[in-house]
Amino acid sequence: MAKRKHRKNQNLLTSPGTLTYVGPDIDLNTIVTRIQYNKEFYREEQLTGKKDIEDFLSFSHPGTVNWFDVNGIHNAAIIAHLGKTFKIHPLVLEDILNTIQKPKMEWLGENSLFIVLKALSYRVPESGPRKKAPGIESGMEVEHICFVVQPGVLLSFQEEISEDAFVEVERRLKTSVGKTRSNGLDYLLFSLIDIIVDHYFLVLEKLEERLESIEDEIMKGSANYKLGDLYGLKQDLTVMRRCVLPLREMLLDLMRDESGFVKPEVEPYFRDLYDHAIQVIETIEIYRDLMASLVDVHLSSMSYKMNQVMKTLTVFSAIFMPLTFLVGVYGMNFDNMPELHLANGYYIVWAVMIVTAIGLYAYFKWKKWT
Amino acid sequence: MAKRKHRKNQNLLTSPGTLTYVGPDIDLNTIVTRIQYNKEFYREEQLTGKKDIEDFLSFSHPGTVNWFDVNGIHNAAIIAHLGKTFKIHPLVLEDILNTIQKPKMEWLGENSLFIVLKALSYRVPESGPRKKAPGIESGMEVEHICFVVQPGVLLSFQEEISEDAFVEVERRLKTSVGKTRSNGLDYLLFSLIDIIVDHYFLVLEKLEERLESIEDEIMKGSANYKLGDLYGLKQDLTVMRRCVLPLREMLLDLMRDESGFVKPEVEPYFRDLYDHAIQVIETIEIYRDLMASLVDVHLSSMSYKMNQVMKTLTVFSAIFMPLTFLVGVYGMNFDNMPELHLANGYYIVWAVMIVTAIGLYAYFKWKKWT
Amino acid sequence: MAKRKHRKNQNLLTSPGTLTYVGPDIDLNTIVTRIQYNKEFYREEQLTGKKDIEDFLSFSHPGTVNWFDVNGIHNAAIIAHLGKTFKIHPLVLEDILNTIQKPKMEWLGENSLFIVLKALSYRVPESGPRKKAPGIESGMEVEHICFVVQPGVLLSFQEEISEDAFVEVERRLKTSVGKTRSNGLDYLLFSLIDIIVDHYFLVLEKLEERLESIEDEIMKGSANYKLGDLYGLKQDLTVMRRCVLPLREMLLDLMRDESGFVKPEVEPYFRDLYDHAIQVIETIEIYRDLMASLVDVHLSSMSYKMNQVMKTLTVFSAIFMPLTFLVGVYGMNFDNMPELHLANGYYIVWAVMIVTAIGLYAYFKWKKWT
Amino acid sequence: MAKRKHRKNQNLLTSPGTLTYVGPDIDLNTIVTRIQYNKEFYREEQLTGKKDIEDFLSFSHPGTVNWFDVNGIHNAAIIAHLGKTFKIHPLVLEDILNTIQKPKMEWLGENSLFIVLKALSYRVPESGPRKKAPGIESGMEVEHICFVVQPGVLLSFQEEISEDAFVEVERRLKTSVGKTRSNGLDYLLFSLIDIIVDHYFLVLEKLEERLESIEDEIMKGSANYKLGDLYGLKQDLTVMRRCVLPLREMLLDLMRDESGFVKPEVEPYFRDLYDHAIQVIETIEIYRDLMASLVDVHLSSMSYKMNQVMKTLTVFSAIFMPLTFLVGVYGMNFDNMPELHLANGYYIVWAVMIVTAIGLYAYFKWKKWT
Amino acid sequence: MAKRKHRKNQNLLTSPGTLTYVGPDIDLNTIVTRIQYNKEFYREEQLTGKKDIEDFLSFSHPGTVNWFDVNGIHNAAIIAHLGKTFKIHPLVLEDILNTIQKPKMEWLGENSLFIVLKALSYRVPESGPRKKAPGIESGMEVEHICFVVQPGVLLSFQEEISEDAFVEVERRLKTSVGKTRSNGLDYLLFSLIDIIVDHYFLVLEKLEERLESIEDEIMKGSANYKLGDLYGLKQDLTVMRRCVLPLREMLLDLMRDESGFVKPEVEPYFRDLYDHAIQVIETIEIYRDLMASLVDVHLSSMSYKMNQVMKTLTVFSAIFMPLTFLVGVYGMNFDNMPELHLANGYYIVWAVMIVTAIGLYAYFKWKKWT
Ligand SMILES: [Mg+2]
Ligand SMILES: [Mg+2]
Ligand SMILES: [Mg+2]
Ligand SMILES: [Mg+2]
Ligand SMILES: [Mg+2]
Ligand SMILES: [Mg+2]
Ligand SMILES: [Mg+2]
Ligand SMILES: [Mg+2]
Ligand SMILES: [Mg+2]
Ligand SMILES: [Mg+2]
Ligand SMILES: [Mg+2]
Ligand SMILES: [Mg+2]
Ligand SMILES: [Mg+2]
Ligand SMILES: [Mg+2]
Ligand SMILES: [Mg+2]
Ligand SMILES: [Mg+2]
Ligand SMILES: [Mg+2]
Ligand SMILES: [Mg+2]
Ligand SMILES: [Mg+2]
Ligand SMILES: [Mg+2]
Ligand SMILES: [Mg+2]
Ligand SMILES: [Mg+2]
Ligand SMILES: [Mg+2]
Ligand SMILES: [Mg+2]
Ligand SMILES: [Mg+2]
Ligand SMILES: [Mg+2]
Ligand SMILES: [Mg+2]
Ligand SMILES: [Mg+2]
Ligand SMILES: [Mg+2]
Ligand SMILES: [Mg+2]
Ligand SMILES: [Mg+2]
Repeated sequence: MAKRKHRKNQNLLTSPGTLTYVGPDIDLNTIVTRIQYNKEFYREEQLTGKKDIEDFLSFSHPGTVNWFDVNGIHNAAIIAHLGKTFKIHPLVLEDILNTIQKPKMEWLGENSLFIVLKALSYRVPESGPRKKAPGIESGMEVEHICFVVQPGVLLSFQEEISEDAFVEVERRLKTSVGKTRSNGLDYLLFSLIDIIVDHYFLVLEKLEERLESIEDEIMKGSANYKLGDLYGLKQDLTVMRRCVLPLREMLLDLMRDESGFVKPEVEPYFRDLYDHAIQVIETIEIYRDLMASLVDVHLSSMSYKMNQVMKTLTVFSAIFMPLTFLVGVYGMNFDNMPELHLANGYYIVWAVMIVTAIGLYAYFKWKKWT
Repeated sequence: MAKRKHRKNQNLLTSPGTLTYVGPDIDLNTIVTRIQYNKEFYREEQLTGKKDIEDFLSFSHPGTVNWFDVNGIHNAAIIAHLGKTFKIHPLVLEDILNTIQKPKMEWLGENSLFIVLKALSYRVPESGPRKKAPGIESGMEVEHICFVVQPGVLLSFQEEISEDAFVEVERRLKTSVGKTRSNGLDYLLFSLIDIIVDHYFLVLEKLEERLESIEDEIMKGSANYKLGDLYGLKQDLTVMRRCVLPLREMLLDLMRDESGFVKPEVEPYFRDLYDHAIQVIETIEIYRDLMASLVDVHLSSMSYKMNQVMKTLTVFSAIFMPLTFLVGVYGMNFDNMPELHLANGYYIVWAVMIVTAIGLYAYFKWKKWT
Repeated sequence: MAKRKHRKNQNLLTSPGTLTYVGPDIDLNTIVTRIQYNKEFYREEQLTGKKDIEDFLSFSHPGTVNWFDVNGIHNAAIIAHLGKTFKIHPLVLEDILNTIQKPKMEWLGENSLFIVLKALSYRVPESGPRKKAPGIESGMEVEHICFVVQPGVLLSFQEEISEDAFVEVERRLKTSVGKTRSNGLDYLLFSLIDIIVDHYFLVLEKLEERLESIEDEIMKGSANYKLGDLYGLKQDLTVMRRCVLPLREMLLDLMRDESGFVKPEVEPYFRDLYDHAIQVIETIEIYRDLMASLVDVHLSSMSYKMNQVMKTLTVFSAIFMPLTFLVGVYGMNFDNMPELHLANGYYIVWAVMIVTAIGLYAYFKWKKWT
Repeated sequence: MAKRKHRKNQNLLTSPGTLTYVGPDIDLNTIVTRIQYNKEFYREEQLTGKKDIEDFLSFSHPGTVNWFDVNGIHNAAIIAHLGKTFKIHPLVLEDILNTIQKPKMEWLGENSLFIVLKALSYRVPESGPRKKAPGIESGMEVEHICFVVQPGVLLSFQEEISEDAFVEVERRLKTSVGKTRSNGLDYLLFSLIDIIVDHYFLVLEKLEERLESIEDEIMKGSANYKLGDLYGLKQDLTVMRRCVLPLREMLLDLMRDESGFVKPEVEPYFRDLYDHAIQVIETIEIYRDLMASLVDVHLSSMSYKMNQVMKTLTVFSAIFMPLTFLVGVYGMNFDNMPELHLANGYYIVWAVMIVTAIGLYAYFKWKKWT
Repeated sequence: MAKRKHRKNQNLLTSPGTLTYVGPDIDLNTIVTRIQYNKEFYREEQLTGKKDIEDFLSFSHPGTVNWFDVNGIHNAAIIAHLGKTFKIHPLVLEDILNTIQKPKMEWLGENSLFIVLKALSYRVPESGPRKKAPGIESGMEVEHICFVVQPGVLLSFQEEISEDAFVEVERRLKTSVGKTRSNGLDYLLFSLIDIIVDHYFLVLEKLEERLESIEDEIMKGSANYKLGDLYGLKQDLTVMRRCVLPLREMLLDLMRDESGFVKPEVEPYFRDLYDHAIQVIETIEIYRDLMASLVDVHLSSMSYKMNQVMKTLTVFSAIFMPLTFLVGVYGMNFDNMPELHLANGYYIVWAVMIVTAIGLYAYFKWKKWT
């Protein structure tokens, strides 16, 4: 959370529909890829140079699925161009650029959809212009993803260009493996969201590892349990929950859709996706629940150890204080101290001290303090 | 919360509809501004002197949007005048003056609306007659805002006159920038609420800074973590939540509105506003959630430090108590203490003491106490 | 809560409809007042002596609102009489006498209503036969109030006779101030509930004062924070919440009422009342929420102070224990202790001790323990 | 909870509808009482000996209400006989015998009902074959009660035979007091449930006494606060909540019933019962809420006392450690210690010690530690 | 939770419908059993060798119920074969193999059902290739169970082959005991789920034993209360809750089913099952609730014991520190110490010390510290 405060959201107090990119500064190029396919046909092209952009965008192959994949949204000019060509509402464009916009789905008209999602990944955050998730000990990264669906056309917008998660779908299209090529726009949309949800499971595995390592440390009662770990995990779970929760409503809406966008044979795939989203959400809830219990276990463990330390101190003090007092008595310099002159005085004092020590020790033993 | 108790709510136990201003005392003038515009036309006038008030209010330019912006509601007489001219129900006027009235929206009839909102700001509270938000360490300020919408006319009431948040909208109207001039009353209402919601984000940024600074202090385990900070932040979040929560219902109601007040082309703007309101509410919930975790981390950290201190004390005591006892023994003045007369007695005692000390230290080292 | 256990609820295990007063013993007379009015006419009469009770009750002035206000419900005979005259169901009469009956509203037929409410007040509880609210440090008092509404007639039942809250409404009727006289039974009912709700705000102000004083003590970290205060406040808020919560449903029901009892021009008044009830409920929730946070702040503060005390003890012990050991060494009486005979032995020991003390002190300073 | 584990539920893994009594072992006889009545007529008979059971059961007096009250369900044979005579589904019989079956209501057909309830009582559990409620310090007892309602016939099943709660209803029937005799089967069912609910209030009074006594001990900060008390009370409230909660739905269902079983004149009685059930549930919730607060108060009180103890120890140590060190210094045996030979050396040391002690004491006084 | 991390879910990022077994490695054979029966007829056969698999699966006896029970799902080839023969959608097959798929029910068409359940058992986990439930001190095991229902055919899939829970149902079918043989597919499905739910009760008994043993240890305040026990129990309850919760919706859906799959005479059996599922869920909630209270009791108990230890230490220190100081005073070697030369000096010092000790002891007694 430390990073974000240095970058004010510059889109506040401006007129609605003003296109301002609000994410971190990025010096990479925006890459726009156009993929056109049907069962028999596949073509992939990249937008190179800025002169032919209108031709590139307006070129539409009849009888095919046209997918424009925009990698990098920091270039507001390209987004504006896309908005003009595909007649996208300025508020939709604003949301595409607004990287803190929460996930949502909106019907823009018959068979026209706008979807905002958050892709999650878990990487060592040294390289690349990525947004650091707001955590104290975290490697989780949040990426802003948008889809605009129009008849025959799907536009996808990814906040960043490195490690494009959709490459796997491109690969399936190219190699004609799986059902992607033989199905339409609805199945393509499903495939892209499915990839994002699969990444949620991968991130969950990482978070589970962290939870387990905290569990282990607390159970061992080890002192090197670091404060920030638990809190950082809580933050990541909170961010993740916020990213995943809206997906449930969205998928329900798509499954129940009566506009005919999702064809009956693709419906089961969306239902499967819904299942997985629920699974992710439930797992997050369980982790949150377990973490609350872990805190209780930890506090109880701290308390127990403190008791042990205090008992040790008390036993030592209670045994040695009387003895030290006693030897102090016979260290006094009074003229008249008859015990000092007894032949066995010294030995008697030792005997008394040993008996006292044993007695006190036995007493604490009986009270189960040692 | 300390301030409010010195000012009793003087509107209790009175007959309903009695107009009593219940906010803090204010010695500034109430400023009423009339703005009239359409796509081609714009006029702005201020009410100066009290004689021409009826003319001023009743003057309505046909074919334009008429916006009366009232800055300062402490002058019950002016409010009463407005109420008479625009035939506003006494209970509505009472709510306009009642600065602790919670946010709400009421349909007063076909195309007639009454809206209560709370504008939030975050300022150093030295100057101006502002209400201090009830917090222990807070700079958040709550301002009571009301809108009355009638065919062709929008009345806005702001509790205070300094730093008028609506100036930005006036500027857009004047300069004809943005879509405000070309749209009607519905878009004007949207613009004003939009400004208020944008300020919520600005306040959230301040609260986030405070949360981060508390996080940092607790993570460092620094002792100068001040008690009131966390509690003050909790209070501000609680107040903010109460201010923002009702907005959700209101905007949903306006979006679904079938009376035709919100025109189809303005609807997306209200949906956008709804999105932002949800974002604010969710962020508040996340902060509240994280704060609860922070308290646990803090208590656990306190407990850990206590353990460290106690272990130090116990190790010191456990090592020096036996040694002090031993030297006490040989400080006794018994006539017959053979060890005292051994040539190496003194050195043997030192040897015993060093072995004892090392043994105890090793023991505590093994128990991981040092 | 201590008081109630000495008075068993004597209405348990009896046949349903048995009239038993279950509140505290009261030795005052029940006062029944009959008020009859319309726009032009007003008459107020009290029931004196028990002989004319039937006449008194059955006398109804046509074209007027007839309000019978019963002050004191400990006299089951009078209640039974009223029940017979106005044909009230025995179970309704039982509820009127049952002072622990929770708030509710029931339609007894077309235009016939039964309402149970709890009036709250906050007084020093020395005088009068009042019920002490179950709190440990509380001055909040709960009064059982019932309304029976029949065509042209409103019966109100107040548990006690002192400081009748409805006097204010009587005054408005007498002086013809406000809208009460010109409206019918529905507005009278509204006015009476409005007075009760206004008293909720007055009680809330008192509870806020108590919360603030607890906040202040905890923030100062003062030791004279009394345990019972926080718990007593929690109890009062819990009792208050239970009293106010059902009001929400009731008022919603009255507002949406299609029986025609609440006339359209009175509806806004009930809506206003609903607003205020919501405001009370939300404020209670906020106080409960803040109190939970206060407990955390308090526990954290206790923990911090403990840490400070322990550090002081540890620093003292760690510095003086080695020194005391050292002087003990040179207090031993061995024949052969060469250091004792050094000319500067004593001064060397002092030097060693001062260096040791300064070193330890610096160590603890560095660990930020002092 | 300790008791139950020694008795495995022997009905698990058996074919559904197998009749197995799962409660504790009981050596008493099952008593079946047949009561027949209408407004003018009343007859009560007990089943004695097992030969005439069929006659006894099939004998039905036309124009009367026939109530068979079965006291003791441990005799599966009798239950099976009843099932055969009255054509009760095997799964219903299984539920009658299954003493851990939760409360519920089922329509078995037109005017045929099956109801499971839990009667609660609070007794010293020395005598009788009763089930001990699962509590650590509890006297609450749970009794399994079932009703089967068929046209003209009500069968009631009570788990145990001692202190039959329904005796009160029998008494009202016999003496013709109250409305029971003049009403039908619906009112009889109401009366029996009403008795059970009245007992809930009696148990609540006992639990309130226990809560108050725990409150008192915690407020006094007395050390003899026993751990199990609070937890036992929590358990009892949890068990009670589970027993009472389903009643709400049941009574709502009966009130809204359109089958005509509950006649219009009896409906208000069920509504009254519903009120009381709600009151019980709300009170349980309040007690649970207050108990959570009590725990916080208790932990805070413990923490406060610990602080007091630690301050005392620290003050003692901090004052006497320097003094003991000082007298140790002048107990050293160095040849050359000039101070020892000063005429007033001893008195100077005393003076220094007194000043030190007073200074330290004043310091701690100033820090409010004593 | 430690085990699972070593096995990555290999079905992520693959094309949907790819059949991958994701559970632990298993080296046992998959056993497929075909059972065919009606009221008069019963035949049971096992699939041996892989050559006749198509015949084995396609062989269907008209007028009978055909149950294929698959024991072991780690052999994806057999599952694929079944899928082909019975025309099961690839996504359903994927779910059958996906052992972390949460419980659910899906209508695949008219009278065609897909059900996922989790069977629970509680065993010492030494033998067999079973999945260890994610607990720290747990013996609970989760087994993935799926049912595919088609007209006349039920396919059941069990994750493992040892201790097949459905053996009990096979026995009933063989011996013609109970109603299973005389009913159809719906009753068979009921019987299988019933067995699973009965096992939930058996597991609950084990968890209750663990809760009781933790209760006992905490109530005794015994120090050997192990940290992991409570947390492990919490984990098991969390896992169990997740397994059982979806059952509620499923059974409600089957009971309300209008497709006619569940015949009217079997409906009561599903209702009975629903009852039991609710009972399991409620018991889990109660245990979770009680565990939260136990933590509070435990922390309070720790705190109490700490207080006792600290008081002991303080009393010892406060008594012996002044005494040790006093004897130190008279151990000083000043030339001029008049008291030393008093004849009774020594005895006077003893007297002073005894009085001091008794006084301090009395003081602490009065403060109730001993
Ligand atoms: Mg903007
Ligand atoms: Mg937007
Ligand atoms: Mg998937
Ligand atoms: Mg984010
Ligand atoms: Mg699936
Ligand atoms: Mg959970
Ligand atoms: Mg917590
Ligand atoms: Mg008023
Ligand atoms: Mg109002
Ligand atoms: Mg406010
Ligand atoms: Mg906006
Ligand atoms: Mg507040
Ligand atoms: Mg959250
Ligand atoms: Mg009664
Ligand atoms: Mg009360
Ligand atoms: Mg009012
Ligand atoms: Mg209460
Ligand atoms: Mg809250
Ligand atoms: Mg807490
Ligand atoms: Mg069974
Ligand atoms: Mg009753
Ligand atoms: Mg029970
Ligand atoms: Mg009642
Ligand atoms: Mg708590
Ligand atoms: Mg996959
Ligand atoms: Mg069963
Ligand atoms: Mg699992
Ligand atoms: Mg059953
Ligand atoms: Mg519970
Ligand atoms: Mg807890
Ligand atoms: Mg707690």
